[in-house]
Amino acid sequence: MKLHGYFRSSASYRVRIALNLKGLSAEHLSYHLRKGEQRAPAYLALNPQGLVPTVQGDGGIVLTQSLAIIEWLDETHPAPPLLPKDPLRRAQVRAFAQAIACDVHPVQNLKVLARLRELGLAEEKVTDWAAWVNRDGLSACEKIIAGEAGPFCFGDAPTIADLCLVPQLANARRFGVDVAAFPRLLKAEAAAKELKAFADAAPERQSDAE
Amino acid sequence: MKLHGYFRSSASYRVRIALNLKGLSAEHLSYHLRKGEQRAPAYLALNPQGLVPTVQGDGGIVLTQSLAIIEWLDETHPAPPLLPKDPLRRAQVRAFAQAIACDVHPVQNLKVLARLRELGLAEEKVTDWAAWVNRDGLSACEKIIAGEAGPFCFGDAPTIADLCLVPQLANARRFGVDVAAFPRLLKAEAAAKELKAFADAAPERQSDAE
Repeated sequence: MKLHGYFRSSASYRVRIALNLKGLSAEHLSYHLRKGEQRAPAYLALNPQGLVPTVQGDGGIVLTQSLAIIEWLDETHPAPPLLPKDPLRRAQVRAFAQAIACDVHPVQNLKVLARLRELGLAEEKVTDWAAWVNRDGLSACEKIIAGEAGPFCFGDAPTIADLCLVPQLANARRFGVDVAAFPRLLKAEAAAKELKAFADAAPERQSDAE
Repeated sequence: MKLHGYFRSSASYRVRIALNLKGLSAEHLSYHLRKGEQRAPAYLALNPQGLVPTVQGDGGIVLTQSLAIIEWLDETHPAPPLLPKDPLRRAQVRAFAQAIACDVHPVQNLKVLARLRELGLAEEKVTDWAAWVNRDGLSACEKIIAGEAGPFCFGDAPTIADLCLVPQLANARRFGVDVAAFPRLLKAEAAAKELKAFADAAPERQSDAE
């Protein structure tokens, strides 16, 4: 299996955690996003959105979109499960993951921030934007799991909710958000970071880290 | 079942289509998004993100995030299926849906456009932003299914890909995008619109339409 990604991409980070939890190895191919390597024609042929990650599996299959890749990994390699069995709990886990993967991450990604700069926004305002998106989204996430005992987002094992949370908290800190306002999220992060699968997937542990 | 939504919300529109395809009825509760009704404390208690839709099911269960709601409907009411059975095909359908639900819709929603206005952007530039996001994302979607025979996005029956596509094309037109550039997407849209489940879910057919 090949994982086309980037050390700092939080969507790639989610997939790295999933691969590690499933005990799967992949050849990591790095695309320097700030240099625009993800827009090279050869990569666009794999992923027309020009986003990372992309997974290439056996027999030339190509998968895009981190949550779709993770659900595919979960369906094809069921142990350990990344979603609960109960439909309602599955929906709650997916909703939390999507609150991050839909409503936070894409609104503060490289492409959007670059567009804000093109519109003449000063660097400080661009950072404010990214911090706002993270603070707003993570505040809602904190409320969503406030009543969950944990220690993970949902229960005593990691799910796709944790796979989205841990990389997003890293982004939030990078943009200067005071994450101490989110004690329940930090509890889930602490539980996750005790696992080697999460630790090994961290951006600073990747071979393309700068 | 109760569906908290808004006629023009494309995420609510996706869920309306899913309910119709499954033959399920729901009481529709409308929140006027431009008036901020989705930020009323009683609604925030259901949905801390202050976004529509939210579904309330039997026994007081509460579900948020349109794609999580739709997968829950599909798991609890399997006929007709909204995802293929094969894991790879499921991943492709989910990836297409997420290309819209993660990378297009949230970057052009009301909250983001309001923020751009707060930053001093002229109305014309705000519309340009929304058009750019739609054009960019739908161009990639067009390429993703270029090789799919159809007539729907993936095969001869609607999937969650079509549930995301049809509402997003409506948004794209509203922001002045020339959708004629996307013939394969229009083919899928035409197939979908022949179905009563899609037609009945259209914004202009809802009781809260203005």
